[in-house]
Amino acid sequence: MNIITSNKGKYHEYKKIFPDAKMLNIGYHEIQADSLEEVVEHALEGLKEHAPLIIDDSGLFIDVYHGFPGVYSSYVMHTLGCQGIIKLMDGFDNRDAAFECVIGHIDINGDSKLIRGRVSGSITKTMKGTHGFGYDPIFKPEGHDKTFAEMVTDEKNKISHRGKAMEGLMRYLDITL
Amino acid sequence: MNIITSNKGKYHEYKKIFPDAKMLNIGYHEIQADSLEEVVEHALEGLKEHAPLIIDDSGLFIDVYHGFPGVYSSYVMHTLGCQGIIKLMDGFDNRDAAFECVIGHIDINGDSKLIRGRVSGSITKTMKGTHGFGYDPIFKPEGHDKTFAEMVTDEKNKISHRGKAMEGLMRYLDITL
Repeated sequence: MNIITSNKGKYHEYKKIFPDAKMLNIGYHEIQADSLEEVVEHALEGLKEHAPLIIDDSGLFIDVYHGFPGVYSSYVMHTLGCQGIIKLMDGFDNRDAAFECVIGHIDINGDSKLIRGRVSGSITKTMKGTHGFGYDPIFKPEGHDKTFAEMVTDEKNKISHRGKAMEGLMRYLDITL
Repeated sequence: MNIITSNKGKYHEYKKIFPDAKMLNIGYHEIQADSLEEVVEHALEGLKEHAPLIIDDSGLFIDVYHGFPGVYSSYVMHTLGCQGIIKLMDGFDNRDAAFECVIGHIDINGDSKLIRGRVSGSITKTMKGTHGFGYDPIFKPEGHDKTFAEMVTDEKNKISHRGKAMEGLMRYLDITL
């Protein structure tokens, strides 16, 4: 299984499911689109020669801002950062948001499949915690009193968007750990 | 000359330079990239069969936010809007920003050329004016006391990013009106 990513952390997570996984750090174009599904589907089209493979894309979707930053979460992280998001939420009672992850998989026969994971939660008023990356310090998953950045990796993965998408992938591929 | 756009206003502006221009409303993928040049260059690749043609892409680049919203200006307009940008600028003395436009052109021989236009200015503290569209109500060009939205089209076009890029295109193609 080829894991198409430049992110070693991501690669090591997939290696837990696929012990023989190889990390393939090749560039691919992410298109501007409304949904992670569109971004991943378009990326898969250009990668078929590397099957079997996995790619994934994640994003934070804030309710009052129509899903912003969504598919542009990575870009927005590097420009506005968590503090910019906190500023944008100023004055809003509705701080609802969700993290989503879409995994794209192409099997050895060239058949492709998209699998989605989602976790609802809210944007905190200040940054909390030091674990994880990206928006983890300002995202508190529903039913929990801690942000993702206040959870250790295993704790986060049990409830996270990518964790859920990976569970879905394992069910789809009939893999048991 | 084919003008690749879904925007009739844009088409009519180009028609002033190219009286025989045709509007070609065909979809093309805009990639996620750091610069308008990259977006336009990638779009041109898939459009060669329609030459001679023109496409363009524009964006607002805010200094303190590392060029945000940049190539994602249209998406950010539809999610955060002008009020979101005003909120983000809260507390910053440096309100410098620039509008940029990149025109991509492919001639009848298949040769392509990118031409850029830029106007410096600042983000206002409130929305002003009713002309134009997008970020016009919060962008005040350098050396002027009005926002783009307080200017009529001809006045704006003389100093605007797209106006400048169009001038550059006319010089490049040796067109005089």
